[in-house]
Amino acid sequence: MPFVTIQITREGSTPGADAATADEKAQLIHGVSKLLLDVLGKPMDATFVVIDEVETENWGWGGLPVEQFRARRRAG
Amino acid sequence: MPFVTIQITREGSTPGADAATADEKAQLIHGVSKLLLDVLGKPMDATFVVIDEVETENWGWGGLPVEQFRARRRAG
Amino acid sequence: MPFVTIQITREGSTPGADAATADEKAQLIHGVSKLLLDVLGKPMDATFVVIDEVETENWGWGGLPVEQFRARRRAG
Amino acid sequence: MPFVTIQITREGSTPGADAATADEKAQLIHGVSKLLLDVLGKPMDATFVVIDEVETENWGWGGLPVEQFRARRRAG
Amino acid sequence: MPFVTIQITREGSTPGADAATADEKAQLIHGVSKLLLDVLGKPMDATFVVIDEVETENWGWGGLPVEQFRARRRAG
Amino acid sequence: MPFVTIQITREGSTPGADAATADEKAQLIHGVSKLLLDVLGKPMDATFVVIDEVETENWGWGGLPVEQFRARRRAG
Repeated sequence: MPFVTIQITREGSTPGADAATADEKAQLIHGVSKLLLDVLGKPMDATFVVIDEVETENWGWGGLPVEQFRARRRAG
Repeated sequence: MPFVTIQITREGSTPGADAATADEKAQLIHGVSKLLLDVLGKPMDATFVVIDEVETENWGWGGLPVEQFRARRRAG
Repeated sequence: MPFVTIQITREGSTPGADAATADEKAQLIHGVSKLLLDVLGKPMDATFVVIDEVETENWGWGGLPVEQFRARRRAG
Repeated sequence: MPFVTIQITREGSTPGADAATADEKAQLIHGVSKLLLDVLGKPMDATFVVIDEVETENWGWGGLPVEQFRARRRAG
Repeated sequence: MPFVTIQITREGSTPGADAATADEKAQLIHGVSKLLLDVLGKPMDATFVVIDEVETENWGWGGLPVEQFRARRRAG
Repeated sequence: MPFVTIQITREGSTPGADAATADEKAQLIHGVSKLLLDVLGKPMDATFVVIDEVETENWGWGGLPVEQFRARRRAG
C-alpha cells in the first residue's frame, strides 16, 4: 500500500525529447514498485506511483531557477 | 485549518467528459470540507482543498501505467 | 485509484483528547472514500487516504505559529 | 537539504498577467532559499524549491471553489 | 534534481521488527536514486529521497483504516 | 491562499539543539508568509505553512542516508 511520488523537471533526457517519454515513465513506475516488493515485500498491486513533472522555471536550486543554477555551475 | 489534497487521474467519469467537471470538483471541495466540520468541528472557512489531476501515463499501479494495469485486470 | 492526504494539527476536538481519536480518523477515511465513490464513481477499494497530523508549533497561519494566530484572533 | 513546496493558484498578481511571472517565481525561489540559510544555516546549494501552480477551479476554500468563495466574501 | 517521496505504513516487514529498519531504508534510498540515474540519467548526487512512515491508524484503504481492511480481505 | 510545505531534517542548527527550535520555526513561518505578501501580494492571513521534520535516517541524498552522504563528502 505504499504511495510513491517522483518529482522531476519537465525536460527530455534524450536528443529531441522535451519531456520524459511514456516508456521512461513506465520504467520508473515498474522499477520503484519492484524495489518496494524486493526490499519490504509489498505486493506490486498495492503500490501507487505518481510522476509529477515540474516546469523548469518552477524548480529552484541554489536560490535560482534551475536552468540559471546549471548555467552558473557550467560557467564554474 | 486543515489542508486536503485529492489526487486523481485526469479522465472523465461520465460519457464525453475527459476530465472531472467543474461541478464534480465543487462537490469534492464541498464534501470534504463538510466532512472535516462534521467529524472534527473544523470551520469550513479554515479548510483548504487542492485537487491534483494527474495524467494517466504518470500514474502507476501494479508496476504499470494505470491504463495498462486496468487492461490487464479486465483481461483477467 | 485516488490518493487523498488530509493534513490536520495534532490536537483534540473533544474534551480530554489531545489528538484526533481512532474513531474520528476512521470517519474521515470512510467519509472521503465514500465521497469519491459518489461524485466520481471511484471504487472504495481503489482509494488510499493518509492522515498527516502536524504539531501545532509546525503549522503557520497569518505569519505566526497557529496557536499564536488563534490567540491574536480571540483578542480581536 | 531542505525541500520547499509553494502551492499557489495559477493567476496573475499584476494587471495583464494570468499567472505568476518568471521573475516573481525567481524571487520566491531566492527568498525562501535565503530564509533557510539565515534561520537554519542551510547552504543555498542544498535547498530545492518547487512552485506548484493550481488552477483556481481546483482550489477550494470555505467549501467552495476559491473564486466563488472570494465572490461571496466581497458580497459580504 | 529529482525529489522522491516514499510513503509507507510504520510496521515491520520481518519478524520482530515494528518498522522498516535503517538497512531497508538505505536500500530504498539507494534503489530509487539508482533507478533515476539508469532511466533518466539523473546524477545520484542530485536526487533527494524522503521516506514518510505513516501510522497504520492514519492510513485508509477501501474506506477503512488499513488494518481493518486487511482483516476484512483475509476473512474473504 | 498559498500553502507552503518546508521539509527539513530533524536536527539542530545550534549547539545543544537536536531539532529546529520553536523560535526558528516561527521565523520560517513569518519569513515565508511575508515573502508571499511582498512578491505576490498574498495577504498573510491567507497563507498556511507546514514544517515537516524528517528523521535523518529517512532522508536520502546521493543514494545514501544523508548522514552517510555528508560523511563521504567530508572525507572528500
